[in-house]
Amino acid sequence: MQTKPMALTLEQLNSAPSDQALAWLGGIYEHSAWIAQGALAKRPFASLAALKAAMADEVTHAPHDQQLKLICAHPELAGRAMVSKTLTAESTHEQQTAGLTACSPEEFETLQTLNARYKEKFGWPFILAVRGPRGTGLSRTQIIATLARRVQGHPDFEMQECLRNIHRIAEIRLKDLFACNSALGDEVWDWHQSLAQYSEPDYAARGELTVTYLSQAHQACAKEISERMQACGFDEVHIDAVGNVVARYLGSNPDGKTLLSGSHYDTVRNAGRYDGRLGIFVVIAAVQALKRRQTRLPFHIELVAFAEEEGQRYPATFLGSSALVGDFDTAWLSQTDADGVSMLQAMQRAGLDPQAIAGLQRKPSDYLGFVEVHIEQGPVLNEMNRPLGVVTSINGSVRLQCEVTGMASHAGTTPMNRRRDAAAAVAELSVYLEQRAAQEANLVATIGQWQVPNGSINVVPGRCLFSLDMRAPSDAQRDALSHDILQRLRDICSERGVRCEWEETVRAAAAPSDAGLQSRWEQAVAELGLPIHRMPSGAGHDAMKLHQIMPQAMLFVRGENAGISHNPLESTTSDDMQLAVEAFSEFLQLLCTDHL
Amino acid sequence: MQTKPMALTLEQLNSAPSDQALAWLGGIYEHSAWIAQGALAKRPFASLAALKAAMADEVTHAPHDQQLKLICAHPELAGRAMVSKTLTAESTHEQQTAGLTACSPEEFETLQTLNARYKEKFGWPFILAVRGPRGTGLSRTQIIATLARRVQGHPDFEMQECLRNIHRIAEIRLKDLFACNSALGDEVWDWHQSLAQYSEPDYAARGELTVTYLSQAHQACAKEISERMQACGFDEVHIDAVGNVVARYLGSNPDGKTLLSGSHYDTVRNAGRYDGRLGIFVVIAAVQALKRRQTRLPFHIELVAFAEEEGQRYPATFLGSSALVGDFDTAWLSQTDADGVSMLQAMQRAGLDPQAIAGLQRKPSDYLGFVEVHIEQGPVLNEMNRPLGVVTSINGSVRLQCEVTGMASHAGTTPMNRRRDAAAAVAELSVYLEQRAAQEANLVATIGQWQVPNGSINVVPGRCLFSLDMRAPSDAQRDALSHDILQRLRDICSERGVRCEWEETVRAAAAPSDAGLQSRWEQAVAELGLPIHRMPSGAGHDAMKLHQIMPQAMLFVRGENAGISHNPLESTTSDDMQLAVEAFSEFLQLLCTDHL
Repeated sequence: MQTKPMALTLEQLNSAPSDQALAWLGGIYEHSAWIAQGALAKRPFASLAALKAAMADEVTHAPHDQQLKLICAHPELAGRAMVSKTLTAESTHEQQTAGLTACSPEEFETLQTLNARYKEKFGWPFILAVRGPRGTGLSRTQIIATLARRVQGHPDFEMQECLRNIHRIAEIRLKDLFACNSALGDEVWDWHQSLAQYSEPDYAARGELTVTYLSQAHQACAKEISERMQACGFDEVHIDAVGNVVARYLGSNPDGKTLLSGSHYDTVRNAGRYDGRLGIFVVIAAVQALKRRQTRLPFHIELVAFAEEEGQRYPATFLGSSALVGDFDTAWLSQTDADGVSMLQAMQRAGLDPQAIAGLQRKPSDYLGFVEVHIEQGPVLNEMNRPLGVVTSINGSVRLQCEVTGMASHAGTTPMNRRRDAAAAVAELSVYLEQRAAQEANLVATIGQWQVPNGSINVVPGRCLFSLDMRAPSDAQRDALSHDILQRLRDICSERGVRCEWEETVRAAAAPSDAGLQSRWEQAVAELGLPIHRMPSGAGHDAMKLHQIMPQAMLFVRGENAGISHNPLESTTSDDMQLAVEAFSEFLQLLCTDHL
Repeated sequence: MQTKPMALTLEQLNSAPSDQALAWLGGIYEHSAWIAQGALAKRPFASLAALKAAMADEVTHAPHDQQLKLICAHPELAGRAMVSKTLTAESTHEQQTAGLTACSPEEFETLQTLNARYKEKFGWPFILAVRGPRGTGLSRTQIIATLARRVQGHPDFEMQECLRNIHRIAEIRLKDLFACNSALGDEVWDWHQSLAQYSEPDYAARGELTVTYLSQAHQACAKEISERMQACGFDEVHIDAVGNVVARYLGSNPDGKTLLSGSHYDTVRNAGRYDGRLGIFVVIAAVQALKRRQTRLPFHIELVAFAEEEGQRYPATFLGSSALVGDFDTAWLSQTDADGVSMLQAMQRAGLDPQAIAGLQRKPSDYLGFVEVHIEQGPVLNEMNRPLGVVTSINGSVRLQCEVTGMASHAGTTPMNRRRDAAAAVAELSVYLEQRAAQEANLVATIGQWQVPNGSINVVPGRCLFSLDMRAPSDAQRDALSHDILQRLRDICSERGVRCEWEETVRAAAAPSDAGLQSRWEQAVAELGLPIHRMPSGAGHDAMKLHQIMPQAMLFVRGENAGISHNPLESTTSDDMQLAVEAFSEFLQLLCTDHL
């Protein structure tokens, strides 16, 4: 084996003879030099991110058998291979870093049992990037919990999850090889960690994160965020009348316009750590970098950490961004929480002045627009091995609560052609709904709640309650989707002689991205050497509210664990965070060029 | 209008000139002489039942518009028409009999409000045969409750329900016209009424009927049944070791064989009055008629009122008939009820001797076979306007509890092609299951329980629990049905990348009717002038157990209210009961001819 240079550079890799390059990269993917070989044919690489993407694509495009061979080339975690000769130096180092070689006998036995169950179920060894999303190593408890969770999964999904972990292992090995770090990303990661220390007592006691509007934990978050903003170089920081933390980094021209950015710092109950907060910290890190370089841009940057987006404490949602667009309904002030505390009382107790909310409305002509960075909250980037995605539109949505009433009857004595089966009608709708949504790109339709009240094994369902959630990138598409699905429901019910009723509970307009802002996100991503992936946002975001008064465009950051969200398993890596900060900095640069 | 004779005879009707016959029957269906006209073309009629069937068929085969006109020809119940000139003498008489002209102001207002809602929803007046199933008139409370219930229904169903009530009104008018009665049917009806006085205290307090194995109410029922058997002329009556009430009506030849009949007297919770008991009382009435005529048959009749069939108090079911076929598992004796009382204790407290159960097993060679009369518990005879149905087979069944596990994910951010929607998989199965069951006559398959645990409107279902109930007239058909449905479930789950698991909870063999006994039921029905309708039994019955050791065949009696069962709305008319008694007597006669 060739001796590796102490710190390889991209220039060296790009210009080295094939044999030499392969010697450097051959071990990045365990015992699978074919991956490096395929990727190296695509030299030169503009960035390390581009090299990673090229290697990941080799795996993605490989046949199933070869992917399986790659997985099986890995040693069992803390298994018998730990003491065998087949373990590579890299693997030994990684497993040691995770402290796996220091397992207690009980932990070792648990791992062995789970490994055996895993191997029996899937036929390949459990693969986990044990250095974790921050690169500093998962704890043994985390590793065991992950194995216990993943052994439950579906084989197709689990195989992909193994490949994703292999890409993550490769990513960390490349960082070592190129002696590079993700210092900005690590910092942003740590800020999330620090902010997650504030959680409401009942949840904190269970180790869960919950920060609802104006709770003590929420106010502590606002304080930490405002201090972080000040420490990182923002010129003006204050908490506004609705609880938003507002910071300005002034531009070189006092009369210049302002770029608005932000996301929310409240959470759902038992939340992940990155939802909303990532869009605050990425901007703080980018401004910190400007400040360190003593750079002023030809426009101001205004960052708003929105106080409320999730609608957890009160029925009303998007309180923070609503205030900025003049859409804060004062009737909301009399809404009460589960303890009977009105929103007005909660604001007064927190020292906020509800009278001043109307004055928070922004004047669109002062602004260049609004941009928001957010974790994807979905599986797409994770599945595609893409760290960043450019949002084309925030989907419009309609939600309905529905009920079909047929006639309950004896399951044995009621012939098939004499039934009025309420659940079978919904089943027929479900099949249509899937087909209809799949007809156009980026439409989704879901029956999330589905219940036959007091159903019995021997009774034909007389009632079925269900929900409908339909989303599309434009209002016209959403309305056509909703029209077709409801028309089909009517037809099915008429054919089956059952009744249906529904109530619309949500109707939100689509927010297409501004073409100019979106194209700058695309350029920024391309500058990092990353493939551009365009996608709609299926979830609602503060940008949707800002869209009412100014152009907007969002950037998505990949979520781990199939993009799970509103869940403690929500995660992203510090390397992806680094890329998000770099993309935001690029975005600012591109905007400067336009405004110089 | 022609003057009616005091009591028309069928001979007179069959031989009268058309004009005269039409004058007699023209008013049987309100303002709709076309029905009589059509039916009279089919003279001569063998029985009043045949005439009724012919008239009902005229309505069934009429176009929808004409059916609607027939409905609209009826006055509104207790409505403004009550004081108008449009009410026929018959209608006035019927509504007076029901006491509707003596409504309190509150009752009248309730009726008016419901009538208005009904008329607005359906566009036709509410039709109810106010003289009720016994012909003696419904109470005002019953009438108002029926209107309040039926106003909830589906228009298609409600229109048919109106037509069925019109047929019932016609049936009662014909009885008046022919001055005939259903004295045997009325008596059988009243026996049910009397037996329904015994109910367990908690249920009795709510006016509900519940008689589970060996409760006080159950023992009171056994006593009343045994007294009724003795009073009606059975020669030997006793309560056996399992609680069955066993009676014998001896034949003319002491060495002759025995015809076994019977059904159960226990009930489900909040039961109807006719399930099981009808098959006891019909035989008692037939034997009473024999005894009154001092007739002895060339075979003995053994009637068993089975103590337990419904499996309500203990997990085991068919306790009564199991004992007769040597299938009573002594392990059941240690099963406990909700209060911890074992079956053994319950039997001892009731003075029964569990040791003697084994001795109850019958010797097949002593018997001609087993016949059972039972209320249909389904909608078929009710919809077809047929009072009796001949059973071809008791369907075999399989029941499963199933679970599909997919992956819960965000309904907005998970593209359609990346979902592992557990409920959508079950929906696809539901559509297939309906198609598969409909491919062959008399198969049924049902998903009765259907639940997405903790479903949210914005979460793709990660789990779906459901039940499967599949039944068929033969075991081979049942197994093919079950095989195809489970194979489709496997395929769907494999295509969708979700997992499925199931547990079989019930597997019961089919019990095809004995050809000889079935053909005698058919002849008996035909002798009454009724069309023969053959049908399988979708529900299980004691005959299914007796099938293990001797030939069996069942007769079904039409249920009102779409054949609803295990519900206080379960009902049949005293006229249908009369026909059942007549059919059973005919059946005995046919068997005599064979054995003389």
